Amino acid sequence: MQPPRTRGSVITLTTDFGLKDPYVASMKGVILSLAPEARIVDISHEVPPQGIVEGGFTLACAFPHFPKGTIHVLVVDPGVGTSRRLLLARTENHFFLAPDNGALGLVFDVEPPREIREISAIHYSRPEVSPTFHGRDILAPAAARLARGTLASHLGDPTQEFVPSPLPPPEPLEGSRLRLRVITADRFGNLILNLRQQQYHELAGASSGERFSLEIASRRISRLVRTYGEAAPRELVALFNSSGYVEVAVREGSAARTLACGAGAEAILAF
Amino acid sequence: MQPPRTRGSVITLTTDFGLKDPYVASMKGVILSLAPEARIVDISHEVPPQGIVEGGFTLACAFPHFPKGTIHVLVVDPGVGTSRRLLLARTENHFFLAPDNGALGLVFDVEPPREIREISAIHYSRPEVSPTFHGRDILAPAAARLARGTLASHLGDPTQEFVPSPLPPPEPLEGSRLRLRVITADRFGNLILNLRQQQYHELAGASSGERFSLEIASRRISRLVRTYGEAAPRELVALFNSSGYVEVAVREGSAARTLACGAGAEAILAF
Amino acid sequence: MQPPRTRGSVITLTTDFGLKDPYVASMKGVILSLAPEARIVDISHEVPPQGIVEGGFTLACAFPHFPKGTIHVLVVDPGVGTSRRLLLARTENHFFLAPDNGALGLVFDVEPPREIREISAIHYSRPEVSPTFHGRDILAPAAARLARGTLASHLGDPTQEFVPSPLPPPEPLEGSRLRLRVITADRFGNLILNLRQQQYHELAGASSGERFSLEIASRRISRLVRTYGEAAPRELVALFNSSGYVEVAVREGSAARTLACGAGAEAILAF
Repeated sequence: MQPPRTRGSVITLTTDFGLKDPYVASMKGVILSLAPEARIVDISHEVPPQGIVEGGFTLACAFPHFPKGTIHVLVVDPGVGTSRRLLLARTENHFFLAPDNGALGLVFDVEPPREIREISAIHYSRPEVSPTFHGRDILAPAAARLARGTLASHLGDPTQEFVPSPLPPPEPLEGSRLRLRVITADRFGNLILNLRQQQYHELAGASSGERFSLEIASRRISRLVRTYGEAAPRELVALFNSSGYVEVAVREGSAARTLACGAGAEAILAF
Repeated sequence: MQPPRTRGSVITLTTDFGLKDPYVASMKGVILSLAPEARIVDISHEVPPQGIVEGGFTLACAFPHFPKGTIHVLVVDPGVGTSRRLLLARTENHFFLAPDNGALGLVFDVEPPREIREISAIHYSRPEVSPTFHGRDILAPAAARLARGTLASHLGDPTQEFVPSPLPPPEPLEGSRLRLRVITADRFGNLILNLRQQQYHELAGASSGERFSLEIASRRISRLVRTYGEAAPRELVALFNSSGYVEVAVREGSAARTLACGAGAEAILAF
Repeated sequence: MQPPRTRGSVITLTTDFGLKDPYVASMKGVILSLAPEARIVDISHEVPPQGIVEGGFTLACAFPHFPKGTIHVLVVDPGVGTSRRLLLARTENHFFLAPDNGALGLVFDVEPPREIREISAIHYSRPEVSPTFHGRDILAPAAARLARGTLASHLGDPTQEFVPSPLPPPEPLEGSRLRLRVITADRFGNLILNLRQQQYHELAGASSGERFSLEIASRRISRLVRTYGEAAPRELVALFNSSGYVEVAVREGSAARTLACGAGAEAILAF
């Protein structure tokens, strides 16, 4: 598969660069210089610095909503300038360009890779590659070339290996219990756990929701609501969020503040 | 009226989602999947969480500058998943899609609605509608359909009712005085009051500006300047801001910090 | 030179407006109303309020990566409404529109101006010009006109004068030493100094890097690394950053926090 060669291939950007500095705009300038018709969309640039899990997770939640053939560039890159590889991956519907550091693993949990290549075609990079900004000098040009019709096979050779997601899966405990982790807290203070709705229903089976019990930060949540509006103001509840993950929320409040916890915190789910 | 069916209808987004999480990008992906030529412009995503007044006010200040036929999507939606309605409104020059919670009232103060419809055509929504993200699953697709030429009348039936703006109007007091409120503090700490330049001149009549007196946070301001540069450094002044509202400002400083006040604070204007 | 008259001239925006308020979006609305095909790209809106040096520097780092003919609008404008002039400058490859307050000086250090004009053609401005928002009412329309093919010469007359950059150049001290200044700290806490790689090599000559010694905040740095990955975790090092400036960094940490310093801080470089 190649991206559609029509005017206006979509290229998304996910980074930990923030919006204060010239870094994101520099990538956009590089892309527009090579692919003037590309449609560039920001996923997020507020990934915590070097937050591989958060960056991968943010892209994993957003990318399925984009058109087929979208090219997603993910740059959370603490290893820039070292020997870590740069990857081009193709799933059923999307392309991904990112350093090989585990962030793409979270994407592949949503849509598995059909082909992974190590980007090696340096003649497609910018003439001078900064040792500290491969996002601008290698990945942005590669995305632009792809948008313009360059074959993926011209960008590098296939590889079978990649660094897996550093996000631990739910851990089975004795007595029909699971140890979960908070992946991230969103802007509203909702705590998102590493369990998807589908997994929950497979595990809970017929008892789904009837005997819900989640322990987090020494509090027990026994209500699994459908939407925030079902909770009482300030009530601590769980629900399946809009990306399909178990989420802990406080109506008209912040679960992160109420529970004083965030990314990495533990939760125990009992069926 | 329909949006112009040319390539590149403009769709704006105003939300309280912040830029850290995948929510805004997910809406953009949905729009671009259905309307690949749409031009998406962010108004603001830094509306305070559940800030109905601030969200409505931000859009009310920005939308008049956009091209005729622009489609504005406003999602500050504490009632998502409850029975609150979703509205499509048409004014002389613009379209608006938003939950019916009062935020659109601030827009209608600037340009009155000619037609309001309750969005009900669920076959235009995404196949699975999350109970917590109608912005992505109902409003974004509706905006994209409208941009592609779907008639407003196909999206829902007309309605006469809508929740009015929660922002109180200026309140007349005895002795030619008005009680005003701070709508919001902007990034520079300028305090924006709920009185427009035109209203001020109608009320002040011939005496406009000659006997200006504004009390706020136990301070009295008697200078109505034309521009920040007319004030002395650190001077506390009032002026009509670029959106036409009375604004309290400190040159080279922050009125919000100087006066230690913000949204909702009271001010008394005497003529 | 004129911008390419094809569909989709690129117009970039750099301001200190932040993203919370309607100001940036209002400029975009004005541009799209006049030049519907323009491609608008944000460089940064998180320039510190009235940060002339930071705004000019951010644009100076980003603009060289944009296509030839790009139109860059820079609005950090503490003097709005006073008699300060508005400039249109043309360099070899780019156009710039900005208040005449020194910010453009940082851009001209990268690419010298070939022509500078004082914007005076008010018939190209918005019908009512707010005395506090020339970015929206004069500069945005001028950029849009330029994108649509209006000749630069129609926007104003040539001028030879402009306010120079307020950023001090490196200051030679006795004993082969230079006094440098921190221009800004980026999101990662990297401290960027006012010395470019090329200047460094000209000054250091054959000894480049061998006898590197930089004093800042009572700490001495003697390692000039090529990339962050060459440093030990938490090590304080110097390197040439991706924009070609000397940068002080802490691997997996923040130099700004480690050294408790930021913009304006002094550093002494010895050869």
